[in-house]
Amino acid sequence: MKRTGRNAAESSGRRPARVTAVSGGDGLPMLQSLLGYNVRRAHVSMARDFQRHVGQGKVRPVVFSILLLAEAQPGIAQVELAHKLALDKASLVALIDRIEGSGLVERRRSTQDRRRQGLFLTPQGILRLQALKDEVGRHERRFMERFTPVELALLVSLLQRLHD
Amino acid sequence: MKRTGRNAAESSGRRPARVTAVSGGDGLPMLQSLLGYNVRRAHVSMARDFQRHVGQGKVRPVVFSILLLAEAQPGIAQVELAHKLALDKASLVALIDRIEGSGLVERRRSTQDRRRQGLFLTPQGILRLQALKDEVGRHERRFMERFTPVELALLVSLLQRLHD
Repeated sequence: MKRTGRNAAESSGRRPARVTAVSGGDGLPMLQSLLGYNVRRAHVSMARDFQRHVGQGKVRPVVFSILLLAEAQPGIAQVELAHKLALDKASLVALIDRIEGSGLVERRRSTQDRRRQGLFLTPQGILRLQALKDEVGRHERRFMERFTPVELALLVSLLQRLHD
Repeated sequence: MKRTGRNAAESSGRRPARVTAVSGGDGLPMLQSLLGYNVRRAHVSMARDFQRHVGQGKVRPVVFSILLLAEAQPGIAQVELAHKLALDKASLVALIDRIEGSGLVERRRSTQDRRRQGLFLTPQGILRLQALKDEVGRHERRFMERFTPVELALLVSLLQRLHD
């Protein structure tokens, strides 16, 4: 499959990634055909909306993800969180330190395995997450409304192929 | 069109943005259905590859974009760059200060309008941009290969709708 896509792209006249062919034009059409440019612009657009409308600009998307996973899987291990969110252990630990500092989560030792520390939402964290979910739902819908359900499912599946 | 997408999504059984329906599961499937989560993961994946393979980790994607636009449109105005790259003026000016400091571009006054400053690549900037284009081309192809040409065109057009 990978080969097919590549060869087909190279044998066709359209070469969106042939960055050398810039002569003429204002450069923007070439830039606009780059995958990286479009992914970044889409990200910036959604990140700005998130920042503006979720958690009064004080909650990063990754923090929302952590709270969500801690709710779905109480006592989740840090190593599992790091894996699921594609974060390195050090960044995750620093993030959880801050979330713990604001009283939304707490680390507790597992009763089965004393060496294993799990992450739990505090009662305050549970309440906060409920409010955040409503805001994130509205944030998501502002972008989802631009697509039909079929387009949306397709977009999500193509994006997953970029980060799998 | 916008309405159609929204209503269809609400009347169908699938509700990827209904963040309140998390009971059961490990939370990841719900997270994975969020548009923002997938856009961010795709962005992180491409940004990491860019950082690893382009300009020895010292050139940010936005810097590459600025160099590209300055090549395509020598003497381009800062206000136009800011508009094309969706940056605020202050961020752009700070960025250009740094690129100018490294000798890749220079600001020169327009001969027609002395108040207007334009951006030009220096000879060093022209050479540097050539090398960067090759690296960016290879970076793009590593991701493009995952799609057929039709999928790729579709993905770019759906992403554009997210940031338009």
